[in-house]
Amino acid sequence: MTSKQLDYSQDPKHDLHQLIVRKDAPFNAEPCPVDLIKNYITPEKYFFCRNHGPLPDIQELDHTILVQGLGCDRPTRFNMKQIKEDYEKASVMMVMQCAGNRRDGLHKVKHTKGVIWGPGALGNAIYSGCRLRDILATVGVTTKIKNLTKLHVAFESVEQCEEDKCYGSSIPLSKALDEFGDVLLAYEMNYSTLTRDHGYPIRVVVPGYIGGRSVKYLKSITIQDYESMSYYQRRDYKILPESVSDEKQAEAFWCKVPSIGEYNVQSYVCNPSDGIHDGIHCSNQTVQGYALSGGGRYIQRVDVSGDDGKTWTTAQLHQPAAEGNNCRVWGWCLWSVTIATKRGVRIVSRAVDSSGNVQQEYPVWNYRGVMNNSWRTVDSTSMEMSNI
Amino acid sequence: MTSKQLDYSQDPKHDLHQLIVRKDAPFNAEPCPVDLIKNYITPEKYFFCRNHGPLPDIQELDHTILVQGLGCDRPTRFNMKQIKEDYEKASVMMVMQCAGNRRDGLHKVKHTKGVIWGPGALGNAIYSGCRLRDILATVGVTTKIKNLTKLHVAFESVEQCEEDKCYGSSIPLSKALDEFGDVLLAYEMNYSTLTRDHGYPIRVVVPGYIGGRSVKYLKSITIQDYESMSYYQRRDYKILPESVSDEKQAEAFWCKVPSIGEYNVQSYVCNPSDGIHDGIHCSNQTVQGYALSGGGRYIQRVDVSGDDGKTWTTAQLHQPAAEGNNCRVWGWCLWSVTIATKRGVRIVSRAVDSSGNVQQEYPVWNYRGVMNNSWRTVDSTSMEMSNI
Repeated sequence: MTSKQLDYSQDPKHDLHQLIVRKDAPFNAEPCPVDLIKNYITPEKYFFCRNHGPLPDIQELDHTILVQGLGCDRPTRFNMKQIKEDYEKASVMMVMQCAGNRRDGLHKVKHTKGVIWGPGALGNAIYSGCRLRDILATVGVTTKIKNLTKLHVAFESVEQCEEDKCYGSSIPLSKALDEFGDVLLAYEMNYSTLTRDHGYPIRVVVPGYIGGRSVKYLKSITIQDYESMSYYQRRDYKILPESVSDEKQAEAFWCKVPSIGEYNVQSYVCNPSDGIHDGIHCSNQTVQGYALSGGGRYIQRVDVSGDDGKTWTTAQLHQPAAEGNNCRVWGWCLWSVTIATKRGVRIVSRAVDSSGNVQQEYPVWNYRGVMNNSWRTVDSTSMEMSNI
Repeated sequence: MTSKQLDYSQDPKHDLHQLIVRKDAPFNAEPCPVDLIKNYITPEKYFFCRNHGPLPDIQELDHTILVQGLGCDRPTRFNMKQIKEDYEKASVMMVMQCAGNRRDGLHKVKHTKGVIWGPGALGNAIYSGCRLRDILATVGVTTKIKNLTKLHVAFESVEQCEEDKCYGSSIPLSKALDEFGDVLLAYEMNYSTLTRDHGYPIRVVVPGYIGGRSVKYLKSITIQDYESMSYYQRRDYKILPESVSDEKQAEAFWCKVPSIGEYNVQSYVCNPSDGIHDGIHCSNQTVQGYALSGGGRYIQRVDVSGDDGKTWTTAQLHQPAAEGNNCRVWGWCLWSVTIATKRGVRIVSRAVDSSGNVQQEYPVWNYRGVMNNSWRTVDSTSMEMSNI
């Protein structure tokens, strides 16, 4: 698909960000690994930006959100004042992670389609706003709705996009109504008003799901008995089989492969950056990184290896969201460990989540380059380990 | 710990079962892989049996269940008549899987503690009974309870056990109260009254969790602000780090490592049994097996390889529980595929669940031998692939 002529001249400046720009227009940028883990709550200057078109410039006073569809008493428009004043304000600490985080690891194996993200397309933030299920209750939609497990909530954005008329996506209605699902319509990030980069004046946040479902610049919410028809739900963010390697082959698979919701278990060595160290041999190298898993699963263990996976040392975990909480955990885990390193051997990490899922060793390549969580990095020609 | 003197003389006969006995007393047995996948709903003759002591011989008329603890208006006893007549009967189709399923794969790497299960310590059944959250609502416990995410529901069994005074375990209260959690107090399995092997007259069933949490012969339910104190919660069914290889070393880790709840992504080649085929070369070998994942995650893809993981073919999935259902899926997936095989190379399968988790290649060994989901089998000495 050729790019539409979209006007990026009104995009905000990003002078205060300390990000590596992966694409100028639309603006896509991520922090370097070392910056990413400096804070448990990621400040905006280190928070990745993911856009599919020019950033909308919305006046909050004029903005409304339409809620409509199956089970709704009638289509209803909510303005920002109602959302802020008539509904309880809730906060959720959660990782926002792009499905394409670490796409570079798959792109090294074979060409992938998409922005070539490194390991920084995620951040851990506190979002505040009203609960989506409170809004849905107002229009009459509760868990008593007929055929609940077949229904979806579709979101549309004001954002004009390159691949579709606007950004759109959907989640299962059961996730939206789940008392432990914590889906918000957020108007704050880290206790400040959302910026244009992050969806001002209002966005969806869907904890435990890939960032693509947390629609920014929200303009409508529709209950329907099919997934969003948007390009971003139907022809993107899917794990195609390894055999599918171009757009033409993909054509037959889009309708057969499920769209991604929850993300998988993940970890990465951020310090030294990418696990690449200066030392030749070092008996006590301090190593730090992040780990996370989708769906509210916390991290139970991170193993770190300085000898290419022959031996592993268990890291110390910093995961306050999980302490004394046996329900779902949406925040990430930062970890650190001291290990011995070897000349020319990249340090690697391997996380185990609370459901016993472990990162795989080798990348399982897919055309869209999504959900890469291998602990080993391979180079493009030989599928051998990429050493320093 | 030395075995207690327990009397197994009143255990039922198992003449009608077609199971491989892994231990006589307590009775532990599993079907052979080929039998296991003959039916989507596993009949009792092929359903694994897992016991920790002699099978109780309970008279249903005399049996009561005590419900007590935090948030309960008062301790209340329910008899079986009340449970069957006063509460709506609900059914759930779900996999019951022992955390030790496929322990043999880890035991080949290094000695593990526990019954050496093959790949048959699971089955897919329809359980029917009352909802646990309906019972809890009767005694006043709902999601409005204070500190919900710090509370647990502990279950105790009539079963006398080798390692503790009785079988006990717990789950997070949030799982028990979750509208989409489907936790039942079941009195039927596959539309027949539970047998003594499977927990007559009543058992807990916890979909998406390891079987060890689905307590049989239920005698009490307690809401408390700590996990069950039972041996089976605290000193068993945990994924200890690889460095812990005996009882003495484990001592320092039991209190640091979380107990297992949800199980991980899994698949296995059942036909030909264990992926071991007679043929030398065969261009169109039919291969069948099972796949499943915990926490309501369904299976989105199963890849099968006849050439040691060099190339993979996508299998056809039979997973009716997932069709038209975008909420949680508790039933398993049976799959089949036709592939080429090579002389002396074991056929292997690798599943991807709906959260993008993939089975790891090599076993990550742990002392208790739990949650083994590697797609490759290794032998005990060299950690090389075990070929035929």
